[in-house]
Amino acid sequence: MKLSEPQIATFRDQGYLLLPNVFSSGEIATLNAELEGIFSQDRPENVREKNGRAVRTTFAAHTFNKAYARLGRHPRLIEPVMQLLGGPVYIHQYKINAKAAFDGDVWQWHQDYGTWARDDLMPEPRAMNIAVFLDDVSEFNGPLMFIPGSHKRGKLDAGHDLETTSYPLWTLDNETVTRLVGEGGMAAPKAKAGSVLLFHCNLVHCSAGNMSPWSRTIVYLSLCHVDNHIRQFKRPEWIAHRDFAAIEVLPDDCLVTLARDALTPA
Amino acid sequence: MKLSEPQIATFRDQGYLLLPNVFSSGEIATLNAELEGIFSQDRPENVREKNGRAVRTTFAAHTFNKAYARLGRHPRLIEPVMQLLGGPVYIHQYKINAKAAFDGDVWQWHQDYGTWARDDLMPEPRAMNIAVFLDDVSEFNGPLMFIPGSHKRGKLDAGHDLETTSYPLWTLDNETVTRLVGEGGMAAPKAKAGSVLLFHCNLVHCSAGNMSPWSRTIVYLSLCHVDNHIRQFKRPEWIAHRDFAAIEVLPDDCLVTLARDALTPA
Repeated sequence: MKLSEPQIATFRDQGYLLLPNVFSSGEIATLNAELEGIFSQDRPENVREKNGRAVRTTFAAHTFNKAYARLGRHPRLIEPVMQLLGGPVYIHQYKINAKAAFDGDVWQWHQDYGTWARDDLMPEPRAMNIAVFLDDVSEFNGPLMFIPGSHKRGKLDAGHDLETTSYPLWTLDNETVTRLVGEGGMAAPKAKAGSVLLFHCNLVHCSAGNMSPWSRTIVYLSLCHVDNHIRQFKRPEWIAHRDFAAIEVLPDDCLVTLARDALTPA
Repeated sequence: MKLSEPQIATFRDQGYLLLPNVFSSGEIATLNAELEGIFSQDRPENVREKNGRAVRTTFAAHTFNKAYARLGRHPRLIEPVMQLLGGPVYIHQYKINAKAAFDGDVWQWHQDYGTWARDDLMPEPRAMNIAVFLDDVSEFNGPLMFIPGSHKRGKLDAGHDLETTSYPLWTLDNETVTRLVGEGGMAAPKAKAGSVLLFHCNLVHCSAGNMSPWSRTIVYLSLCHVDNHIRQFKRPEWIAHRDFAAIEVLPDDCLVTLARDALTPA
């Protein structure tokens, strides 16, 4: 999968790009079928919401689940990012953000690179997110909210918020957000399950809580150019990975064949 | 201002009705100009958010502010409700819900009549809300979220939530909301400042927090048929009013003349 010139121009200008219907309903079903088993595990990679009930984020599912391991090497995700970052990439962070029906809490205003730079000493913003929607994302279930163009402002001052949610985050102050929204407005890309959303690691974003009965699970691959790997290992390995080897992509049908393998009697 | 037959049919079927651009920008400016003065007062009618900063709700502003007193007798609000409730009405509750930029917290899933019946012993659901948008309401600043048609289910079981926000509310459980959304879906009416939203007192609704830099202030008149006045006076008078006299409407230009009066030198 190659991005077109207009798609690349949109990404450079807006800081994000929505690609509807990249994965089939069968591929998404394969991924969704694993979630209950993943979320029910008692392991540190499962960070729960402040209310203690639902899983908020599962880190590093590619290290312990076969379907998510294949997704982490999927050509439809890796190749567009290699194209944008101009070379081989490794997985800096791998998250399943559940934003569960009723329980899913906010993500405060932040830049991802703000955390990667401060906590992990990632040298440059030569890294980005590519996200797969495992559920339909609507205005009702806490979509990502972006400030278009804000990635052009570079890494902004931030404070370490240890209180608002169960997960520590370097967040922006209201004055900065007000100024940036005044320049770029806000956008909340909505799309069906199977859609893919790319966004720059300096794009300012947040998301509201999910009060709807519809869960809003999104898988995020945070991919970094191999030359730009992190220099500090303060956070656990399953939050900020230390394997900087270039990802070798799998065949395009890797999720389809996984489903077939599972159906084949031994 | 009279509602048309199709408008009435929409209200009966969906439980709500959006009327865009009912008040002019000048009238809205007159109302907005009073807010800072109202919110800055240290009085029990100003209920603050849990974080202690912004005002969440101002009750009974019609009892201590001239502009909001006029709004509470405005023919464009009172007459459509008299038409729907079939007779004279009084003000059961009068709220300015600020949902301040960044600070505005959620309103949990609830029916207003659930609270009016349980706390105030209002005999029948012959009461309803009519709301005036003082700001543009968008997908970004915590719009009301409705379950269309849910008002037809009558008063539903509810629990008294004293924890989630700073204001106690009789709220519905997740199972009930899931079932009702399965039947009716969700809707979040968006419109410019000056628009008016009517909704049935049994319509199930909620709203998410406001993470945007845009405040989302809405004035709610909860109007009740005079025959259907409350029987129990457990809550403060400024939350559940005890003056059951029928509202006598003012002239249609009452907000315009107020602004003019203020400009006239003594």
